Amino acid sequence: MISKTPKESRTVVTDLVLPSETNPIGNMFGGELLARMDRAASIAARRHSRRIVVTVSVNHVAFNKMIPLGSVVTVEAKVSRAFKTSMEIFMDVWIEDRESGMRSKANEAIYTFVAVDEMGTPVVVPALVPETELEIERHIAALRRKQLSLVIAGKMKPNEATELKALFE
Amino acid sequence: MISKTPKESRTVVTDLVLPSETNPIGNMFGGELLARMDRAASIAARRHSRRIVVTVSVNHVAFNKMIPLGSVVTVEAKVSRAFKTSMEIFMDVWIEDRESGMRSKANEAIYTFVAVDEMGTPVVVPALVPETELEIERHIAALRRKQLSLVIAGKMKPNEATELKALFE
Amino acid sequence: MISKTPKESRTVVTDLVLPSETNPIGNMFGGELLARMDRAASIAARRHSRRIVVTVSVNHVAFNKMIPLGSVVTVEAKVSRAFKTSMEIFMDVWIEDRESGMRSKANEAIYTFVAVDEMGTPVVVPALVPETELEIERHIAALRRKQLSLVIAGKMKPNEATELKALFE
Amino acid sequence: MISKTPKESRTVVTDLVLPSETNPIGNMFGGELLARMDRAASIAARRHSRRIVVTVSVNHVAFNKMIPLGSVVTVEAKVSRAFKTSMEIFMDVWIEDRESGMRSKANEAIYTFVAVDEMGTPVVVPALVPETELEIERHIAALRRKQLSLVIAGKMKPNEATELKALFE
Amino acid sequence: MISKTPKESRTVVTDLVLPSETNPIGNMFGGELLARMDRAASIAARRHSRRIVVTVSVNHVAFNKMIPLGSVVTVEAKVSRAFKTSMEIFMDVWIEDRESGMRSKANEAIYTFVAVDEMGTPVVVPALVPETELEIERHIAALRRKQLSLVIAGKMKPNEATELKALFE
Amino acid sequence: MISKTPKESRTVVTDLVLPSETNPIGNMFGGELLARMDRAASIAARRHSRRIVVTVSVNHVAFNKMIPLGSVVTVEAKVSRAFKTSMEIFMDVWIEDRESGMRSKANEAIYTFVAVDEMGTPVVVPALVPETELEIERHIAALRRKQLSLVIAGKMKPNEATELKALFE
Repeated sequence: MISKTPKESRTVVTDLVLPSETNPIGNMFGGELLARMDRAASIAARRHSRRIVVTVSVNHVAFNKMIPLGSVVTVEAKVSRAFKTSMEIFMDVWIEDRESGMRSKANEAIYTFVAVDEMGTPVVVPALVPETELEIERHIAALRRKQLSLVIAGKMKPNEATELKALFE
Repeated sequence: MISKTPKESRTVVTDLVLPSETNPIGNMFGGELLARMDRAASIAARRHSRRIVVTVSVNHVAFNKMIPLGSVVTVEAKVSRAFKTSMEIFMDVWIEDRESGMRSKANEAIYTFVAVDEMGTPVVVPALVPETELEIERHIAALRRKQLSLVIAGKMKPNEATELKALFE
Repeated sequence: MISKTPKESRTVVTDLVLPSETNPIGNMFGGELLARMDRAASIAARRHSRRIVVTVSVNHVAFNKMIPLGSVVTVEAKVSRAFKTSMEIFMDVWIEDRESGMRSKANEAIYTFVAVDEMGTPVVVPALVPETELEIERHIAALRRKQLSLVIAGKMKPNEATELKALFE
Repeated sequence: MISKTPKESRTVVTDLVLPSETNPIGNMFGGELLARMDRAASIAARRHSRRIVVTVSVNHVAFNKMIPLGSVVTVEAKVSRAFKTSMEIFMDVWIEDRESGMRSKANEAIYTFVAVDEMGTPVVVPALVPETELEIERHIAALRRKQLSLVIAGKMKPNEATELKALFE
Repeated sequence: MISKTPKESRTVVTDLVLPSETNPIGNMFGGELLARMDRAASIAARRHSRRIVVTVSVNHVAFNKMIPLGSVVTVEAKVSRAFKTSMEIFMDVWIEDRESGMRSKANEAIYTFVAVDEMGTPVVVPALVPETELEIERHIAALRRKQLSLVIAGKMKPNEATELKALFE
Repeated sequence: MISKTPKESRTVVTDLVLPSETNPIGNMFGGELLARMDRAASIAARRHSRRIVVTVSVNHVAFNKMIPLGSVVTVEAKVSRAFKTSMEIFMDVWIEDRESGMRSKANEAIYTFVAVDEMGTPVVVPALVPETELEIERHIAALRRKQLSLVIAGKMKPNEATELKALFE
């Protein structure tokens, strides 16, 4: 199985915020953004694995900025690390000022997907070879996040979580 | 007002076809695709004009290929010609095979938008300077389409529609 | 196969514009109207052919009037011409003033559908015999539009498009 | 205030049943039909009163027939009786066989609306003069239904409900 | 078959009113509430019968209070009476003031469901044994409502409707 | 400001999975569940704070079980820890077997909300006093999660994250 680069799974979803997607104070409803990101991330995971993919977890989403009605929102998703059968997807969310055309970062999110066959059994996915500095940084951090979720789930002992432990030393 | 190139308005919307977006025979519902293209085209028009934009007409949409449930659909929209206050947007729609990763063309569509101020009055938009061969070809054809719609609406006499007339000579 | 009249396929869809169907400036979202028209037109095509029908193209939609939130919108669809396996559907869209009850024309649209069997193979549809003056006028114009789209698609030589050519002479 | 006839408020809504509107066993979801009827009935009430109208109650809906995915459903709504500020709307729901074109009755429903001004205060509506035999029959029954709901709500003593009482004598 | 109590079918659905669920004057759209209640009631019917259930009728819904955008709405559904194969579901709808936390009653609704097997044939459901005073009261009234709907449908003679007749004596 | 217990914010949302909420392989679409949880969590945060609340982050969601079409899904949300102006909400998601009535755990999720005034400025929320063993356990773990997200965001030095550090010693 040939390894792939993050740019091979890059998925861009640009869309408006319409009134049906706002909360009562006129900003984009959080749940709507979570759903859009799930769609974008699943396409990136599918492009990397060329398999049916299923959401395994949402590891982190930070809503740093309110996104007002009428905004143009771009979700950019790329695989940040491939494990045996699962893939971590890192997303950057941008909004764009209509008058100046300037983009600003609104959110970041990390989701994990697993590739499965028609019966739902996990299948092996290609390795990921990061290229840019940012991709390399996220690739390393992905391992810490993986260990963290194993520790939290009680499936790994804290002192075996070498990457994570290093943070506190 | 500085002119712009088509790539400055390029808008990419990649999304899945979920069950809620299919027709009774399991393909993407035509109305859903028309709505997605309207959103993509309005963002391209807005990027070109940096104004509020309003759909004026749908000039042509050809549904050449059925798009089955579960497909990854990419709409790519670019301004193909700017008139005084209006813009023609040309869209290409692609679907992507999950296993091979191959993309194939599913549809083409042409929408027209007008830029308006807060009161709804049309405002002047930047000129468009096409760059690639395909952009130039679409830029020329846009004028014929414009003339055609003026002729059909009875606002231009057929023999004044010079570009269009040339087709039949 | 017995021919039919336009009134046999007449389909009326009257509905409100709710907040979830508006754009950021409070008028009906263009994509929502395109989707409603696709549903109305497909019912008219189905009533004419009594077959499964599939959208082939949107030939023309003119958005002449903004449709504000809370409007009552009526889409009236009728087959305007039947070709061998395809049908052109002409739609008139009306809005209705709540206080006076007056209707005004907001849009016109032309969609084309093809009738297919269970395998997706095109099947022959009944001929259409227009009755009213307006139906006859639209029936004739439909042939010009058909030729035009064949010319644009490169499937007919301009000088064979007799109906269309006549326009420019 | 000039009285009106039921046909002046007649509202026809014809639409498809798409996959997003079905229940898990592939028929039209009851809640979706209730919502469509609410929209149709509110338009009929508005056409009668030319006022803002608000749903007061759903008096009766009988789901006699399952409506399968892909059906063409027609809701026909007319005011069946006008009271001082409220209106009873009677709806018939039909489905249409694609192949034979035959219509069959699927449901009946009765909703009540009140007309209000901008402040939400109920306002007087025109009287209703039924014309056809069926309209007259429904007009009479509407009074019994009105009395019944007052009795149930404890706002009328059973022995004052003359129309209703007559049923049991 | 062991009888059940109303609390065994109790179903609570608490949700917000978002902009996509409002009518043009900013309150919850009646059709949306009807749809939410249909979902809640069908879950209660399913919990009582442990069968596939289908909406048979909406017997009564009173919209006593407008529900503004941003409200927290709670629908509480319980089986109020089980007949041979059908169940009456009684629902109370509450809204909750954000600042004081006080709940107030907004609506009441009564729906009827029937339990069916995979072929759609009605199947027997467990008896219902009401426990609280309110449950007993609703249980008795359910029989009157059942008789009333049989009388209205012409399937029972008024003088056989013993429970109902008693009201008018 | 009087402290509150988790049960005062307990929010229960029970709902069906309809076809419009599934992914192409017939299970509940991940994005739809993320949106439902956002709605449930925001109600719990609002009940605790009696303020306008805004989603700050999704800290963790584990999709342990596929949720098939037609399932009854219950989201139960409670505040697990109150910080100065923010609240961590812990959710358990259950699905229920129709025939046996047995519930099984499908997911867990942790979201964080902040309370704001009308201007969007964060405001102080009541303290939370956990009562049950599970509430106490989650209350303690919430502090570790809070430190973790500060460390990840570079706003706290790892060796100041006392609770977190203890895990690795």
